[in-house]
Amino acid sequence: MRWSEYDSTVCSVARTVEVIGNRWTLLVLRDVFNGIVRFDEIAGHLGVARDLLARRLTTLVDAGVLERQPYQELGNRTRYEYRLTSAGVELRPVLIALAQWGDAHLAGSEGPPTAIRHEACGGGVRLSIECDRGHDVADGRDLRMVPLKAARRNDSHRS
Amino acid sequence: MRWSEYDSTVCSVARTVEVIGNRWTLLVLRDVFNGIVRFDEIAGHLGVARDLLARRLTTLVDAGVLERQPYQELGNRTRYEYRLTSAGVELRPVLIALAQWGDAHLAGSEGPPTAIRHEACGGGVRLSIECDRGHDVADGRDLRMVPLKAARRNDSHRS
Repeated sequence: MRWSEYDSTVCSVARTVEVIGNRWTLLVLRDVFNGIVRFDEIAGHLGVARDLLARRLTTLVDAGVLERQPYQELGNRTRYEYRLTSAGVELRPVLIALAQWGDAHLAGSEGPPTAIRHEACGGGVRLSIECDRGHDVADGRDLRMVPLKAARRNDSHRS
Repeated sequence: MRWSEYDSTVCSVARTVEVIGNRWTLLVLRDVFNGIVRFDEIAGHLGVARDLLARRLTTLVDAGVLERQPYQELGNRTRYEYRLTSAGVELRPVLIALAQWGDAHLAGSEGPPTAIRHEACGGGVRLSIECDRGHDVADGRDLRMVPLKAARRNDSHRS
């Protein structure tokens, strides 16, 4: 059966994209991974409208990606900062994959503006694609997304 | 210097997100990776408005991710299909990372609806994070994004 005969939304990519597949959310995650965790600081760094940022953060909290933690500076009212949950930390490969592609294809003559490093040793960090039977699949070719039992036929499909 | 003092847009993540960081674009890429390459078929599978799809495809062609190829079926006018360029194929880790997170965190009781497999052997495919000095960084912790020479100070930063 062709992939097009399956419901586009019953898919692990589609479900993840529903949560994080927009520009501001991906940039918020980048900033939180980089230690920019306070609402005001994220808003300032990204230059994003505060109400839009608040909505994106609420989505990420509701999805279990971020936790909202109150903090208070002397003489100020309570504010909030955001920490990655363990599920949130598992989004790191998404950020590395985005960074790696930008490094390779969107860098100017000075080279990539950013690098992801292993904090303890300063070494560069890369993603590699691995086949669990040990074959070399590093080039990303010869891979196929297959529907499993939980996939759904696309009832609206006509062909 | 803190990360927040750097220009948010001069960053490999931000640059990639500018090209592919939206829901429809990511789903288009998923479909093209899965062999759904004709405009009409993508539009039908995703249920996306044709003018929006056309804009997203144009962005991907302009960015060198997809190539537009004419085809003609007997008796019909020329139509177009879209093929990944070699730069496009290098987005595979982004798709795998999204799928992997959805598999782990958004699957229902029946398990993940989709899997990415090595076509030749049917083996499962995973991303792993590697430190180029050989340390174990698989858990995605202890990584840090650092600004390089091509990074830019955020002139609007005041603190």
